[in-house]
Amino acid sequence: MVMMTKEQYIESLRKLNLNLYRFGQKVENVVDDPIVRPSLNSFAATYELAEDPQYEDLMTATSNLTGKKVNRFTHLHQSTDDLIRKVKMQRLLGQKTAACFQRCVGMDAANAVYSTTYETDEACGTNYFENFKKFWTMVQEEDLAVDGAMTDVKGDRGLSPSKQADPDLFLHVVERTADGVYVTGAKAHQTGYLNSHYVLVMPTISMREGDEDYAISFACPTDAEGITLILGRQSCDTRKTEEYNDIDVGNKVYGGHEVLVIFDRVFIPNDMIFLNGETQFAGMMVERFAGYHRQSYGGCKVGVGDVLIGATALAVEMAGCAKASHVKDKIIEMTHLNETLYACGIACSSQGTQTKSGNYLIDLLLANVCKQNVTRFPYDIARLAQDLAGGLMVTQPSEADYRNPATHDYIEKYLKGVASVPTEDRMRVLRLIENMTMGTAAVGYLPESMHGAGSPQAQRIMIARQGNLEMKKQLAKAIARIN
Amino acid sequence: MVMMTKEQYIESLRKLNLNLYRFGQKVENVVDDPIVRPSLNSFAATYELAEDPQYEDLMTATSNLTGKKVNRFTHLHQSTDDLIRKVKMQRLLGQKTAACFQRCVGMDAANAVYSTTYETDEACGTNYFENFKKFWTMVQEEDLAVDGAMTDVKGDRGLSPSKQADPDLFLHVVERTADGVYVTGAKAHQTGYLNSHYVLVMPTISMREGDEDYAISFACPTDAEGITLILGRQSCDTRKTEEYNDIDVGNKVYGGHEVLVIFDRVFIPNDMIFLNGETQFAGMMVERFAGYHRQSYGGCKVGVGDVLIGATALAVEMAGCAKASHVKDKIIEMTHLNETLYACGIACSSQGTQTKSGNYLIDLLLANVCKQNVTRFPYDIARLAQDLAGGLMVTQPSEADYRNPATHDYIEKYLKGVASVPTEDRMRVLRLIENMTMGTAAVGYLPESMHGAGSPQAQRIMIARQGNLEMKKQLAKAIARIN
Amino acid sequence: MVMMTKEQYIESLRKLNLNLYRFGQKVENVVDDPIVRPSLNSFAATYELAEDPQYEDLMTATSNLTGKKVNRFTHLHQSTDDLIRKVKMQRLLGQKTAACFQRCVGMDAANAVYSTTYETDEACGTNYFENFKKFWTMVQEEDLAVDGAMTDVKGDRGLSPSKQADPDLFLHVVERTADGVYVTGAKAHQTGYLNSHYVLVMPTISMREGDEDYAISFACPTDAEGITLILGRQSCDTRKTEEYNDIDVGNKVYGGHEVLVIFDRVFIPNDMIFLNGETQFAGMMVERFAGYHRQSYGGCKVGVGDVLIGATALAVEMAGCAKASHVKDKIIEMTHLNETLYACGIACSSQGTQTKSGNYLIDLLLANVCKQNVTRFPYDIARLAQDLAGGLMVTQPSEADYRNPATHDYIEKYLKGVASVPTEDRMRVLRLIENMTMGTAAVGYLPESMHGAGSPQAQRIMIARQGNLEMKKQLAKAIARIN
Amino acid sequence: MVMMTKEQYIESLRKLNLNLYRFGQKVENVVDDPIVRPSLNSFAATYELAEDPQYEDLMTATSNLTGKKVNRFTHLHQSTDDLIRKVKMQRLLGQKTAACFQRCVGMDAANAVYSTTYETDEACGTNYFENFKKFWTMVQEEDLAVDGAMTDVKGDRGLSPSKQADPDLFLHVVERTADGVYVTGAKAHQTGYLNSHYVLVMPTISMREGDEDYAISFACPTDAEGITLILGRQSCDTRKTEEYNDIDVGNKVYGGHEVLVIFDRVFIPNDMIFLNGETQFAGMMVERFAGYHRQSYGGCKVGVGDVLIGATALAVEMAGCAKASHVKDKIIEMTHLNETLYACGIACSSQGTQTKSGNYLIDLLLANVCKQNVTRFPYDIARLAQDLAGGLMVTQPSEADYRNPATHDYIEKYLKGVASVPTEDRMRVLRLIENMTMGTAAVGYLPESMHGAGSPQAQRIMIARQGNLEMKKQLAKAIARIN
Repeated sequence: MVMMTKEQYIESLRKLNLNLYRFGQKVENVVDDPIVRPSLNSFAATYELAEDPQYEDLMTATSNLTGKKVNRFTHLHQSTDDLIRKVKMQRLLGQKTAACFQRCVGMDAANAVYSTTYETDEACGTNYFENFKKFWTMVQEEDLAVDGAMTDVKGDRGLSPSKQADPDLFLHVVERTADGVYVTGAKAHQTGYLNSHYVLVMPTISMREGDEDYAISFACPTDAEGITLILGRQSCDTRKTEEYNDIDVGNKVYGGHEVLVIFDRVFIPNDMIFLNGETQFAGMMVERFAGYHRQSYGGCKVGVGDVLIGATALAVEMAGCAKASHVKDKIIEMTHLNETLYACGIACSSQGTQTKSGNYLIDLLLANVCKQNVTRFPYDIARLAQDLAGGLMVTQPSEADYRNPATHDYIEKYLKGVASVPTEDRMRVLRLIENMTMGTAAVGYLPESMHGAGSPQAQRIMIARQGNLEMKKQLAKAIARIN
Repeated sequence: MVMMTKEQYIESLRKLNLNLYRFGQKVENVVDDPIVRPSLNSFAATYELAEDPQYEDLMTATSNLTGKKVNRFTHLHQSTDDLIRKVKMQRLLGQKTAACFQRCVGMDAANAVYSTTYETDEACGTNYFENFKKFWTMVQEEDLAVDGAMTDVKGDRGLSPSKQADPDLFLHVVERTADGVYVTGAKAHQTGYLNSHYVLVMPTISMREGDEDYAISFACPTDAEGITLILGRQSCDTRKTEEYNDIDVGNKVYGGHEVLVIFDRVFIPNDMIFLNGETQFAGMMVERFAGYHRQSYGGCKVGVGDVLIGATALAVEMAGCAKASHVKDKIIEMTHLNETLYACGIACSSQGTQTKSGNYLIDLLLANVCKQNVTRFPYDIARLAQDLAGGLMVTQPSEADYRNPATHDYIEKYLKGVASVPTEDRMRVLRLIENMTMGTAAVGYLPESMHGAGSPQAQRIMIARQGNLEMKKQLAKAIARIN
Repeated sequence: MVMMTKEQYIESLRKLNLNLYRFGQKVENVVDDPIVRPSLNSFAATYELAEDPQYEDLMTATSNLTGKKVNRFTHLHQSTDDLIRKVKMQRLLGQKTAACFQRCVGMDAANAVYSTTYETDEACGTNYFENFKKFWTMVQEEDLAVDGAMTDVKGDRGLSPSKQADPDLFLHVVERTADGVYVTGAKAHQTGYLNSHYVLVMPTISMREGDEDYAISFACPTDAEGITLILGRQSCDTRKTEEYNDIDVGNKVYGGHEVLVIFDRVFIPNDMIFLNGETQFAGMMVERFAGYHRQSYGGCKVGVGDVLIGATALAVEMAGCAKASHVKDKIIEMTHLNETLYACGIACSSQGTQTKSGNYLIDLLLANVCKQNVTRFPYDIARLAQDLAGGLMVTQPSEADYRNPATHDYIEKYLKGVASVPTEDRMRVLRLIENMTMGTAAVGYLPESMHGAGSPQAQRIMIARQGNLEMKKQLAKAIARIN
Repeated sequence: MVMMTKEQYIESLRKLNLNLYRFGQKVENVVDDPIVRPSLNSFAATYELAEDPQYEDLMTATSNLTGKKVNRFTHLHQSTDDLIRKVKMQRLLGQKTAACFQRCVGMDAANAVYSTTYETDEACGTNYFENFKKFWTMVQEEDLAVDGAMTDVKGDRGLSPSKQADPDLFLHVVERTADGVYVTGAKAHQTGYLNSHYVLVMPTISMREGDEDYAISFACPTDAEGITLILGRQSCDTRKTEEYNDIDVGNKVYGGHEVLVIFDRVFIPNDMIFLNGETQFAGMMVERFAGYHRQSYGGCKVGVGDVLIGATALAVEMAGCAKASHVKDKIIEMTHLNETLYACGIACSSQGTQTKSGNYLIDLLLANVCKQNVTRFPYDIARLAQDLAGGLMVTQPSEADYRNPATHDYIEKYLKGVASVPTEDRMRVLRLIENMTMGTAAVGYLPESMHGAGSPQAQRIMIARQGNLEMKKQLAKAIARIN
C-alpha cells in the first residue's frame, strides 16, 4: 500500500489510544466525537481528494525516497514546481473544507527536518538524516498522518527557556539513557494532532549554549505513553452537540481543532531523534519550518477566503443588493486581497532554491512577506464580509426556533430576502459567514492567520534580516553620488 | 418616584408578560433566563450608576418637561453640553459593562421623535407633539425603560416597501379605526427590547407618496397583545448555561441581546401615535434618529474599547512581553483609534444646534463621520487585541478542564505566564478578549459597530449630502483663478 | 491702533531689515521677492479677513490683557469656546489660502508661554509672567506678527543637547551679563518668520539638570543683530519666477515658506526673557506649545483639504466622470477623512481646561490624537486626489507652451475635457492639484502635516503618557472578575 | 550588429529629427537637452547593462524570430521563466536608475501585438502577424528603441470615441489610400518617446461596431512627418537647468519624461499596420498590453522602491536615529510593502501561459492584482520615507546657498547630523528622497504608479471579470449545504 483511502485512514485512527480530555471529561471515542469529528473530516479530505483523478497532479507526487507515488502532503519537494503545486493543493483543500485541514504542518516539518538534519550531520557528524529518512520512508509507505509540533507554551516571554521558573515551560530532555531520552514539556495550539498517527517535534526558537536540553527534535506515536491531550475551546464549539446542528454550525461537515499536548516523561528511542543538543541548528530548523509554513498560508487561507467571498456574494444576492456599486466594489476588494495572498504564496515558491539535502526551500524573504500579509488581509476580508452580510448574520434566531412550529412561520416570513430564494438557504449562508468570521472556523481564519507559523512580529524580524538593507543603501549612495 | 433603583427596575420587569421564544422554546421567566440575564444586568447598570452620587452630573439631568431630576437616558437634550454629557455617560457605561447597555436607542428615538413631531404638527396641523410629550412625561416620571425600534426586516433590498412580494416586510398599518390603528410587520436586531417597558417604533427609511401606510410611528407596551419575540443567537451564547460558566463566558455579569420583534395586528390607540401617513416626515425622523444614534457610538463603543485595551494590556503583562516596543506601539495605536472615535462623538455634540422644538440635535455631518469611523476602528482594535493576546486566546482548554482534577494541574502548570500571576487570572483575561472579539460581546463590538445605526454605506450617503461640495468647488476656483 | 489693515501690515514689514539669503544670494527686498511674496499674502490674509465684518466672530476676540478687540491670532484663549473658534478661524484661512498662513505658531507659542511662565514664577520666584504680559500686550496693541520658534536643528538625534559634538546644535546661552544673555544656535523649518515682526523662542525638548543653558525662552525682533536667515527650497519654487507664472504655479497668490534661522551671539535683554535655566519647566512649555499646535492642524489642514477636495471635484467634472460611482465614493472618502481631522480639532478644544494663569489649554490627549491623524489622512486625501485627477496632472505641457502660438492650438484641442469647459480652466485645476500634492503647497500639506508640531512618534509618546492605561486595566479586571 | 552599445545608441538618437517643444520653445538638440537628457540616460542604461556580462542572463535572451541573442527589452517571451526574468531585469534597472527607464512599454506592446495580430489574422484572414514579425525582426536586428503608445487624450470621459465633440480626441484614421492610412489624434503621457526610434501605436480601449476608424494599430518612426511633440512639465524640472544642479536635483544622472504626441495626418504604409478596423480585437490588444504592463510595475517600481528604502535608511543613519525601534519598524514596513509588489510581479509571471502565437502571457488576474497594489504601496512607502527623513527634506537651503561663502559655513554647521558624516552627503540623501517623493522622480514613482498601465478602477474591473465569482459561490453552497 502506498496511499490510504479516506475510509482506511479513518479506520486507522480508531486504533489509536489517545489520552484526550475535553470540556472536563475524558473522550473515549475520539474519532466519533462530535466536537472533534469535523476536524477529522477536513483531514480526511486530504486522503479523499488524492483518490480523485482530476486532482492527481496537485494531490500526489513521486517520492524521492521510494520512487513511488505518494500523497503530496508527505512529499519532500524536489523542485520549485513542487513548491507551487503544494500551494495550489492547499488552496484546493481550503476551498473544499472552508477550514484548517491540518496536514500541512507535518509536511512542512518534514521538509524542514530533512534539510536541517542533513546539514547538522555534515557539521556535527551525527546520524539524524538517516534516522529521519527511515522514519519518513515509513510515513510515505504507509501514507501516515503526521502532526508537526513546534510551539512551546513559553511561560514568561521575557525569559529564555533555561531561565523560566518552571523548566518544563519549554519541552526538554529530562533524562538520557543509552537507548534514548525522556522528554517533558508541552506543545500548544496543535492543529491536527488528534487526526495524526505520529507527531514530529521541533524546538520552538533558536537556542544558545546552555540550552542543549531544549535543542531536541524527534518523532513519536501520538498515543505514546506519557502524553496527555486537552482540547482547546473554539468559539461556538458546542453548537455541534445541539439537537439541531445543521444550520447554526455554519459548516456542518468540516472544521479544525487545537489541542494542548503534554509530554510527561515520554521516552524517545535513539532512532527517532533528529536533533539532540546541537543548539546551533535549532534556529535553522525553526526558520525553515516557519518559512515553509508561512508559504502554506498563501495557499490554505486563500482557499478559505474563496469560500468566504463566495458566501458573501450569495448573501448579497439573496438580499437583493448584489448590483449596488459599493457592494460590487467590496467584493472586488475581497478578491484583490485574497489574490494578493495567493501571489505571495506562489512567488515564494517560484523563487525557491535547492538545499544541500536536495529538497527545495522557499524564498525566505517572500515567504515571510506572504505570512505578514496573511496576518492582515483575512481580517479585512472578514470585515468586508460582515459589512455585506448585514446585521442578520449575528441576530437571526436559532435553527431550533426555525424548526419550532410556534415560530417557524414567522421566521420563514420575516427572514425572507429575494422572494425566490428559500429563507432557509439565506439562513445557511449567513451562518456560514458567522462561522468563518466569529465561530469555529474563525479561529482558523483569523487568530490562526495572525499567530500560526509565527506572530506578525516574528515575520518582521525575518524581513529585517532578509531585506538586505546594506545593498539598498549602496544603491541610494550611487544615485545620490555619495562616495 | 422619579428614578427607580436598580432593584426596583428589575422587579418592574417581572410584571411584563413577554411572549419570548429562544432556542426552540417559550421562555417563561425572562428576567432570570441565563441567556438573557446578562443583558438585563447591563441595562440595569443605567439605573445603578444613576444612584451613585459621583456620576450624578453624567447620569442625571433636569427635565424640560417636568423640571425634575431624571435619568439622562430619558432626557431631551437642552444644550450642546447635554449632548456632550450624553457621550460621556455612554463611555462610562461601556467601561462598566464591556457590552451594549441598550438604553441609548430609546433616548435617541425620543429626541428624534420629539423634534420631528413638532415640525410635522407645524406643517400638517397634526397633534403628534402633544401625544409624544404626554407619553414621554410618563416615561420620565416613572423612569421607564424604552426600546427604540427602527430597523425593518426589509425583504428584497432592491424593492421599496410597497413593492415587496409580502407587504409585511416593512411594518405598516393594516387597519384603521376611529380609536387607532392595527399594525403588522417585524423589527429586527432589537437590542434591549426584553429589558424595556415600552417600545417606540419609527419607520425605517424615507418614504414617498404611496407609502402612507408605512409612514407610521408609535409607542406601545413591550408585551402588547399580538407581539411575538424570537431571540437572536449570539456567538458562544450557550456558554452561559454550561455547568462551569464563570471563566469561559469572558464577561459573566454583563452582555447584550438582539431580538426579532413581530407585530401581528397590534392595536395602537390614537394618543400613542406620532406619525401616521405624513410620508414627507418619515425621512426627517429616520435621519435624526440615525444621527443621534451615530453620535452614541462615539461614546458606548469607546467605553467598550477602553476595556478591550485594558484587557490587552493585562494579557501582555501576564505573558511577560509588555515592554517589547512593538507591543507598546500597538497599544498606543489601539488607544489612538479609540480616542479618535471619542473625538468624533464629542465634536458632533459640541457642534449641535437647537431644533424648532427646543431640544438639541447633533451636527449631522460629524455624527455620520463618527459612525463611519466606528465601522472601521473597532475592527482594527480587535485585530490588534488578537495580535497581542496570542493564540492561546482561542486554544486554551475549557474551564471544565481546569476544574477537572485529571487535568487541572497540567493546565495550571502549562498555561502559566509570568510566575507571579495566577494562571486562572490569565485565563480570565484571555477569555474576556475572546468574548469581546469573537464571543457574545463581539456581536455588539463588531457587527453592531458595523451595522447599528445604519451600515457604512448609509453614512457615506449622508456624508455626500452634508459635505457641501459646491462650496468646496468655489474655494478651489478662487485659488485657481477660474471665473 | 489695535488692528492693522492688510496694507498697513505689509508696509510695516518693509521697515524690517531682515538678513535673508536664498538660492545663493542676499535678498534685498524681502516683501516683494517673488519667491517669498505668496507666503506674505497668506499671512496678510489673517489681517484682511479680520477687517471683514462677516468673519468678526471668528477673526477677533476681546483681549484679557487690554479689554480691547484684538485679532484672534494674538488672543490668549479665555474659554473652550475661544479654543473652538480658533480652530474654525484656521479652517477658514486654510480655505482662503490653500496654504500655510503661518500666524498660528506665534499664537500657540504665546498661549503656552503665558501659562508656563505663570507656573514657573510660582515655583521658582521668577518674574517671567510679567515680562511676557508686557511683551504680549505690545503685540496685541500693535497687532504685530510673531513667529514662534521651537525646533532646533538637533544634530545627532541619539545625543542630548549637551552631548553634541558642536554645542550650538541646540540653541543656548553662550554668555550672561547683568542686562541679559547672548544666545547662539539655529531654529529650523521656521514658517512665517519672514513675515513677522518678532520671534518668540522656546526650547525644543524637555531638559534635565546640566542642560540649564539650553532651557531658554525669549522674544526678539526678527531683524535683531546676529540673526541670519536662509530660505529653504520648496518643490517647484522657481516656477514663481518664470516668465509665465500664472497657471503652472497652481496657486498664484498664496503660499508658505520655511527658513533656517541662525542666531549668532544675539543679545536678549532681561525683560524679554521667559525662561532661563529652569530646566524643569522646559518640558511644560514644549508640551503645551506642541499641544496647541497639534490642535491647530485640526483646523488649518482641514481648510486646505477643503480646497483640494473642491479642486478634485472640479477635475472630475471637467473630465466628464463626476458621476461614476467609484469617483463619487472617493470624494466621499476624502470628505470623511478631512472631517475626521476637524472633529479631532473641535473635540480637543471642547474638552479644554483652564490653566493656573487663566487661559485655556486644549485636552492634550485629544490634541495629540488630532495631530496623529493629521500625519496620515492628508496623505490619503492627496493620494485620492491624484487618483481622480488622472495622469494629466503631472504630464500636461507648460503654460509657456500653451502661450506659444506654435503649440497653443494643439494643447487647446487635445487637453479639452468636457466640451463646454475651457481647456485653460482644466489646466488650472490640474496645476492646483499638482501644487497641493507635489508642488510648493505640498510641502505644507504633506511633510508639514507629518512633522509640523512634532513628528508622528512624538504624538505616540504623548498618547501613551496620557492614555491612562492603568485605569483601563482596572476596568478589564473588574469585568474579568480578577481581584 | 545585434545589440548596440550605450554610445551607439546615443549616437543613433542624434539622427532623429524630432519636432519637440518644451517650455515655450522648439528644442533643437533633444539628445543634449538638459531637461530631457536624464531620461535618455535611464533609457541608455538598458543598453549599458546588456553589455555587462554579470547581467547577461537577465538583460539578454535568444530571439525566437532570429535565433540570435537580443536585448531582453526586445524579446518576445518564450516561457514563464522569460516572464520572471523580465520582472527581475526591470527591478535591476529601477535599482540602477531610481527612475522610469522607459523601454518596457515597447516590449510590452510588442508582446501584446504579436499575439493579438496572430489571433486577428486567424479570425479575419488579415496579414498583420507577418507585418508585425517583419517590423519586430528589424527592431531586434538593429536593437532599436521602441515606444509603445496607447493612451489617448480621451476628451469627455463620459462619451465614446465616436461621440466626442472633436473626433480627434481618440486617434483615428482620417483617410485611407491603396498604400496605407492617414491618422490624426494624440497620445498622452508618453514615456520614452524622445529616446525611441519607433513608436508602436495601439488603441486605448475596447471598441464596438461603428468605431472602426479608431481600431487602429501601427508603427512609424518617431520623427515621421506630421508628428509634433510637447514635453510635459515635471515637478522641479527646471532644477536641472540651474547653475548649481548637482545636489538639488536629487538624482543628477537619471530621470524620465512624459510627452504629448500629436499625430496630424501622419501617413502609415500598409506593411506597418497591425490592426485596421477589426473592432473586436481592439479589446484583446488593450487587455494584453495592459496585463504585461501591469506585470512590469511589479519589477520597475520595486527597484525604485529599493533605492528609496536605501535612501531612507541612510537618512536615519545620518541623523543618528537608525536604532530607534519605530524607525526600524517603519523600514521593515517599507520593505514588506515593496516585496509584496515584487511577489505579485513574480507570481503573475510564474503563472503565465502560452498564447496561440507562441509567446507567453502573464496570468491576467494576478497581473491586475499586482498593479492594483502598485497604485497603493508606493504611496505608503513614500509616506514612510517622508516620515523618517524628517522635515529637513523639504526645508533645507539650496545648493546655491551651500556654495555661497556667505552662508556655506552656517549650513555646514547647522545641517550636520552625526558628526562623522559630511553635511553635504546628508543634503544629497535628503534631496534624493525629495526627488523621489515630490520631485521629478515622484512623477514616475507616484502618479505613474497610480495611472500608468491603467488607473486603479481599470484593474478593479479586470479583477471583477477574472475573479470567477460563480465558482466561489458554488464552493460556498457546497459548504453551506445548499442545493
